[in-house]
Amino acid sequence: MSSQTQTRPAHAFGQVFDRLRPHQAALDEFLREQVARFEPEIRGMADYCIDTSGKRIRPALVFLSGWRDGAAPAPDLVKAAAVVELVHLATLVHDDIMDGADLRRSRRTAAREFGPTAAVLLGDALFSHALHLAAQFPTTEVCLQVAESTRRVCAGEIVQTMRRGSTAITRDDYWRIIDLKTAELFRVSCHLGSRLAGSPAGYVAAAAAFGRHLGIAYQVYDDLADFFGDEQRIGKTLGTDLASGKITLPLLVLQDRLPAADRAALADEITGRVPPQMQLRLRQMNELGVFPVVAQAVQDEISAAVAALAAWPAEAPTPLLMGLCTVLDAQVSALRPGG
Amino acid sequence: MSSQTQTRPAHAFGQVFDRLRPHQAALDEFLREQVARFEPEIRGMADYCIDTSGKRIRPALVFLSGWRDGAAPAPDLVKAAAVVELVHLATLVHDDIMDGADLRRSRRTAAREFGPTAAVLLGDALFSHALHLAAQFPTTEVCLQVAESTRRVCAGEIVQTMRRGSTAITRDDYWRIIDLKTAELFRVSCHLGSRLAGSPAGYVAAAAAFGRHLGIAYQVYDDLADFFGDEQRIGKTLGTDLASGKITLPLLVLQDRLPAADRAALADEITGRVPPQMQLRLRQMNELGVFPVVAQAVQDEISAAVAALAAWPAEAPTPLLMGLCTVLDAQVSALRPGG
Repeated sequence: MSSQTQTRPAHAFGQVFDRLRPHQAALDEFLREQVARFEPEIRGMADYCIDTSGKRIRPALVFLSGWRDGAAPAPDLVKAAAVVELVHLATLVHDDIMDGADLRRSRRTAAREFGPTAAVLLGDALFSHALHLAAQFPTTEVCLQVAESTRRVCAGEIVQTMRRGSTAITRDDYWRIIDLKTAELFRVSCHLGSRLAGSPAGYVAAAAAFGRHLGIAYQVYDDLADFFGDEQRIGKTLGTDLASGKITLPLLVLQDRLPAADRAALADEITGRVPPQMQLRLRQMNELGVFPVVAQAVQDEISAAVAALAAWPAEAPTPLLMGLCTVLDAQVSALRPGG
Repeated sequence: MSSQTQTRPAHAFGQVFDRLRPHQAALDEFLREQVARFEPEIRGMADYCIDTSGKRIRPALVFLSGWRDGAAPAPDLVKAAAVVELVHLATLVHDDIMDGADLRRSRRTAAREFGPTAAVLLGDALFSHALHLAAQFPTTEVCLQVAESTRRVCAGEIVQTMRRGSTAITRDDYWRIIDLKTAELFRVSCHLGSRLAGSPAGYVAAAAAFGRHLGIAYQVYDDLADFFGDEQRIGKTLGTDLASGKITLPLLVLQDRLPAADRAALADEITGRVPPQMQLRLRQMNELGVFPVVAQAVQDEISAAVAALAAWPAEAPTPLLMGLCTVLDAQVSALRPGG
């Protein structure tokens, strides 16, 4: 097993992210400055949320899509990275209220620290500030893109929420939900990075398509890791999707392959009528070959992401963005049962 | 008693609002069109929220501040009115979750109808769409203003939330909270209306100052009505602020004037240690002359609002905006105990 597979998802894109240290440092500094401009009454709370942030995948996509070899982090890219990160943090603050989660990355969630009521408003304030930053670009394009993306992210999460504990969910529903809730912000991150770096329109569209496919691939990987990950290695509790009645692709594939009687029993676990039988379901997934089907779905999206950039090998961001695909591919392989 | 005083707060600005019927109709149509552009999964929910809207005071401020005699509702004003109304509706949706409110204007709240989780996200989606509309103006100014205002509104509500059930609240705290949570959106509505109508910069600043003072006056009136209103007439349950541990100006004045022992008993009601004694507190307010002090605070803000526009009598919006002050003034008089 390579050392790669021992990293947590926080560093899922480890090697590529190493090149972004100055960029992420500039983003950290920028976010601190921004929080200092919040009303004094909410500064401490906003600061707390920014601290709890971990992966910074969306900012990385902004930086990589706007990559220019040898260039220092451009202020415009730092600002756009802050916009997408603040939108993401706002959605996390709101998600944690709804999930009743106590911890995120080993710290108390904002909902737990400040109460759910303050957390609703804090998420709103983070989101407002993201849009305020987006409005500081010379044209309305960033604001327009980010506001529409955010509405789509919310729509995706609403659909997911409304379907929780329901077994009436199809594969089409699943793809639609992750396209909205995850892929949309990946897409807009790549769009903004390449656009702000002055790339030609064709490349901006290609980078956006890349981001969307990478986002879908990443979410399917994340859903697969919820069953096949190693808690130590990936740093979070497994089986939370089944326990919370959220049907993801591994469960959809399992449902299809189970005999009718078992399918009914699984439905009772999803609707919460009986406790989830995580070990049983995992064994059935292994027996019925669920892993390779879902892993293939990730590969297909990775391939689509690579294909989106295939016509643009000479653009500076291309090899770095492609590098993310290689890393994600390795992460999926590291999950493989017994792998 | 004039028929004026029998209107509900929904029509607190009745006579002036009558002139806005075509504008509000244009706004209704515009909002319906916008909801039709939401993701299909959330259209019905968004539509439900727009239906529950009542007063439309903030859109009215946009229309009145941008008033041109004889002119049809300008598309830019309709759009700006939709932006401030959607921001306001988003905050209502989130407020109702936090208050655990069942009804708003005799309809089930979004939180009750769709569940608190979906309501958090629905508020987010309404807010995102507001910013998306704000970004459709030729320059970033509307987006910049609205995003910053919204953050300030959230900051005000966070402070109010954090102080609930606490007696450690000063008059300065009270003024700061209502300046942020209510006056800010009134201010930005007047700013946008006058700005979009092409008024000179001095008038835009004057209209914004007017809006801010009117917003403060309106909130103090609303807080006064929570004690001195007539449930039938104002159409809502009285005493909700005391019952929810929210200290408003009438309670601050009462606290100052009560003997120490009574003050301690009132503190126990505010912190929720004992049930609120609404009738007793109302009697004490009457005995200790709380009403005229708070009514005077409303008058002072109304006077400040009028003063802000005094140098601009010839601008078309001025008499209409002044008219709002007259109506609010009459509303305060209608509350007067035995009045």
